[in-house]
Amino acid sequence: MIVVADNLRITLPAVQQAVERLDPEPIRQMANACKAAGAQAMDINSGPLTRNPAEKMTFLVHSVQACVDLPLVLDTTNPDAMAAGLAACNGRATINGVSLEPEKLQRILPLARQTDADLVAYLLRPDGHVPADAAGRMEAAVQLFAECEKAGIAPERLIFDPIVAPLTWQDGNRQNMAVLKTIRTLSDLLGVPVRTIAGLSNLTTGAPDATARKRYQHAFLPMLADAGTDFILMNVLDPDLMRTVEACRNITAGSVFSWQ
Amino acid sequence: MIVVADNLRITLPAVQQAVERLDPEPIRQMANACKAAGAQAMDINSGPLTRNPAEKMTFLVHSVQACVDLPLVLDTTNPDAMAAGLAACNGRATINGVSLEPEKLQRILPLARQTDADLVAYLLRPDGHVPADAAGRMEAAVQLFAECEKAGIAPERLIFDPIVAPLTWQDGNRQNMAVLKTIRTLSDLLGVPVRTIAGLSNLTTGAPDATARKRYQHAFLPMLADAGTDFILMNVLDPDLMRTVEACRNITAGSVFSWQ
Repeated sequence: MIVVADNLRITLPAVQQAVERLDPEPIRQMANACKAAGAQAMDINSGPLTRNPAEKMTFLVHSVQACVDLPLVLDTTNPDAMAAGLAACNGRATINGVSLEPEKLQRILPLARQTDADLVAYLLRPDGHVPADAAGRMEAAVQLFAECEKAGIAPERLIFDPIVAPLTWQDGNRQNMAVLKTIRTLSDLLGVPVRTIAGLSNLTTGAPDATARKRYQHAFLPMLADAGTDFILMNVLDPDLMRTVEACRNITAGSVFSWQ
Repeated sequence: MIVVADNLRITLPAVQQAVERLDPEPIRQMANACKAAGAQAMDINSGPLTRNPAEKMTFLVHSVQACVDLPLVLDTTNPDAMAAGLAACNGRATINGVSLEPEKLQRILPLARQTDADLVAYLLRPDGHVPADAAGRMEAAVQLFAECEKAGIAPERLIFDPIVAPLTWQDGNRQNMAVLKTIRTLSDLLGVPVRTIAGLSNLTTGAPDATARKRYQHAFLPMLADAGTDFILMNVLDPDLMRTVEACRNITAGSVFSWQ
């Protein structure tokens, strides 16, 4: 289970301001804090970046790479920002991501093939909505797999995201049981081993307070770990949650365990 | 997921003293505390009770029943204590438990049939040792199922215990992955729906401190919940752990969820 920090996001005022001013210092501070906390990769969630997308994503990638050597996950819906970010990355980057929405397929798949990047594939319907159940997610996976194959992207580059649902949704808990089922069965269904990612923070969008958020993230994380999720996109700056990651790894690892 | 308190155990000095003196007050206090904390059943772990086993188990059952109306799980290796406890119980009790050890089969199965009690069946080898893996547990389940059938005990009375292993064991983490696998697949294997129980406190026997104990119990409990464990035998007097139970129930329930 590889931990990807979801902390560097444009919705934080400090990050937004740094991007507007092209001031690398707040970005470096965040990247260093995430690495120190145990992040094994960094998601750079730049949002859509309507003005100067290429310049801003390049700035973000350079700022992070200047201080940490973590693999980067480029998280933007703007294809120009994505292309610029991929060009700025040292080593293999991860595109986050593609879905069956036609414009996503058209713009993102060629970028993935050209750069040989890893590619997060969201298990959404072609209209961008979350499927109602595990069967809908499987259907999306089969179609995305075929689209990627057609575009010349190897299965080992794919990382499927079954879309963790906020518990505030009317059917949020059922959706998240479908997420676990999808993670468990996807490789069997597709007939080749594929990797999966889950965004833990999504679970508690709309939670009334930090205590509730923490409690539910702590309860769902071990379920994701036991299901075999390869990547967890999460708040690495919560030390309790990182300790739960460590406990989950030790319980599920199969290697010799020690309390030390 | 039904929570069974494992707090009433003879290894606690206060409980041991109360049993020796036949003083019901400490037993009542413990039973009331467990019920108030959210226990849905009470395990009465009396140990082997070498002297006056029948009198002491009868005392324990009467003391608990005098103050709470929770279903009782009688947890003793002494068949005379078990018989007396079953006779003292109002309503259906649970026998905890039987295994493939020959003397257990001979003494416990007739008691279970005569009293129509629920019966915890430990997935141990006939020599009383814990099987090495999930296959060993399945084998024990098939044999126990056949023995119970032969003795006239209905499958719906059975509650299989796949034996949570202490993480301090050399292969403790692998054992516990086998526990989860067993819980997930047992009903399919046997061809009839059967219930399962897991003893969470066992996981952290030998843990260096309360923080480590808590962290690992908190990480394993959601895995047990997601696997579909019917009964969790646990420390109900840890409010954090009970809140994790509630979070697990809400995530896995399938009913409408509310933060309130």
